[in-house]
Amino acid sequence: MTVAEVAEVASLGIDWGTTSFRAYRLDAGGGVLAARRADAGIRAVDDGDFDGALEQLVGDWLDASPDVPVVMSGMIGSRQGWLEAPYLACPAAVADLAGALVPLDLARGRRVFVAPGLSTRSADGIPDVMRGEEVQILGAVDRIGVDRATLCLPGSHSKWARVEGGRVTGFATYMTGEAFDALRRHTILGSTIDHAAWDDAAFAAGVERSGAAGGLLHHLFGVRASGLFGELDPARSGAFLSGLVIGHELRAAVPEGASAGGDPVVLIGEAGLVRLYAEALARLGIPSREGPSDAAARGLHRLATHATEARGS
Amino acid sequence: MTVAEVAEVASLGIDWGTTSFRAYRLDAGGGVLAARRADAGIRAVDDGDFDGALEQLVGDWLDASPDVPVVMSGMIGSRQGWLEAPYLACPAAVADLAGALVPLDLARGRRVFVAPGLSTRSADGIPDVMRGEEVQILGAVDRIGVDRATLCLPGSHSKWARVEGGRVTGFATYMTGEAFDALRRHTILGSTIDHAAWDDAAFAAGVERSGAAGGLLHHLFGVRASGLFGELDPARSGAFLSGLVIGHELRAAVPEGASAGGDPVVLIGEAGLVRLYAEALARLGIPSREGPSDAAARGLHRLATHATEARGS
Repeated sequence: MTVAEVAEVASLGIDWGTTSFRAYRLDAGGGVLAARRADAGIRAVDDGDFDGALEQLVGDWLDASPDVPVVMSGMIGSRQGWLEAPYLACPAAVADLAGALVPLDLARGRRVFVAPGLSTRSADGIPDVMRGEEVQILGAVDRIGVDRATLCLPGSHSKWARVEGGRVTGFATYMTGEAFDALRRHTILGSTIDHAAWDDAAFAAGVERSGAAGGLLHHLFGVRASGLFGELDPARSGAFLSGLVIGHELRAAVPEGASAGGDPVVLIGEAGLVRLYAEALARLGIPSREGPSDAAARGLHRLATHATEARGS
Repeated sequence: MTVAEVAEVASLGIDWGTTSFRAYRLDAGGGVLAARRADAGIRAVDDGDFDGALEQLVGDWLDASPDVPVVMSGMIGSRQGWLEAPYLACPAAVADLAGALVPLDLARGRRVFVAPGLSTRSADGIPDVMRGEEVQILGAVDRIGVDRATLCLPGSHSKWARVEGGRVTGFATYMTGEAFDALRRHTILGSTIDHAAWDDAAFAAGVERSGAAGGLLHHLFGVRASGLFGELDPARSGAFLSGLVIGHELRAAVPEGASAGGDPVVLIGEAGLVRLYAEALARLGIPSREGPSDAAARGLHRLATHATEARGS
């Protein structure tokens, strides 16, 4: 590490989720000077010793940049994390999130900040929450340079969010990835799926099928019956099931009126999943684009900047 | 056992499923003279020794009634069962099933018959199957004395069937029970569910929620978020989730145009499940009635009678 490198660091951003830890050294423009990733999500931290874990993972960065703001987002701010940063209700912009940062004093005596998650309610009053994705979402729109967009963050709990005027106005979570895993591992469908195999055409067929009459619970049994009839072999069943559940998510999540003429859905996430979602959306006639890979870093930078300005430090 | 009792037996009917075994001694009118039930489904039979299992379970009945027809239905006729009785395509009446009975010679030298299952295809060509339920369905309409009805057999794989002119014209399977178990046991939802608790109002709320925008995958996450917000406690979450998945099944399965003025849906199955489905249907304004508890026995009797007449034996 050179002295020049250290001098450029304007903030430290940490995206600390359930299963992974990502840290960024950011320059004054939000550029990523260095990034670290570890399988050290909050579940992997023993006895709640988050302070010790943080020292181990980025203690040297904290030493090297003693005066820059440090912002953490994600499940580290949940009830199961280090300290609970209450959910902020939508609509919310970066300034709102920054205003709700919760201070946390490290054992080494330094004050850092934990970002809140976001909450919203559906038309029928049921709550929804996100924690960590809001930083990626606001970072992504900032990076792309738009103040309105529909974004999708596919995963175990896929998030669909709407941004208007630079604020997250609402969102909805779909338990797609986790339901897919539970269904393929813990139901009769598992016995006819070769989990190691993949087939693009079968994925596309699953997306197609998701639009048929009968709903998801009926379509699931179709995977089984098609297998019995030799019309869907084990090497194709997993991809078909994946297309089926993702298709159901998309048909429910894509805003009414979205079509080839609308703004593309911004996809943010792991490259393989983003590719699948883009394919599935294309089959439904919905344009999409891949979001920036540094969305979280960008969002953490924005929070750090706001926090610095607001606190005059 | 008295001689008079034995003299009345006109057929033996056996409903042999994946997890349970039910046998009936039936009189000439289809009345149940005696019934036996054992947790001796085809999965519990060691080394495929179905012959040995049958001898153990009803060998005395076979001895006592050496000349009556014996008909078996259910998964015993599947690929995983004793011998595979190919699926018969809908539409199918009792006479069609009887004509497709597959003879099977027991080690003791007696010839018995295995009923086929039924198959159908959805409008988009995806197959569906049932095995055992078709005998219950045709037995139920015979017992009720109607030749057209919509029937629902709730369970791990709920079956919805339409009968017209005494024939099963089509059906659809919903993987409701199995999906419910996989979701509550093997996803994050499990951590906030008290599996031993039940709450009727929460079940009703789940049925209600199933009609909201967003689809099942979104509604599942709502169970989690409502728990986080203290709006759905562990003692209510399981019942809410049950209402949610059953509600999704019903909204997809109930025929278009069904309403308070239509024929009631005939519910056949375990009493507790039938009660839940009746409640959920009522909340959707759909009338239902409990089907006969001896539907399988009645259907087996009809098959035995047809088989006897057709074969002139």
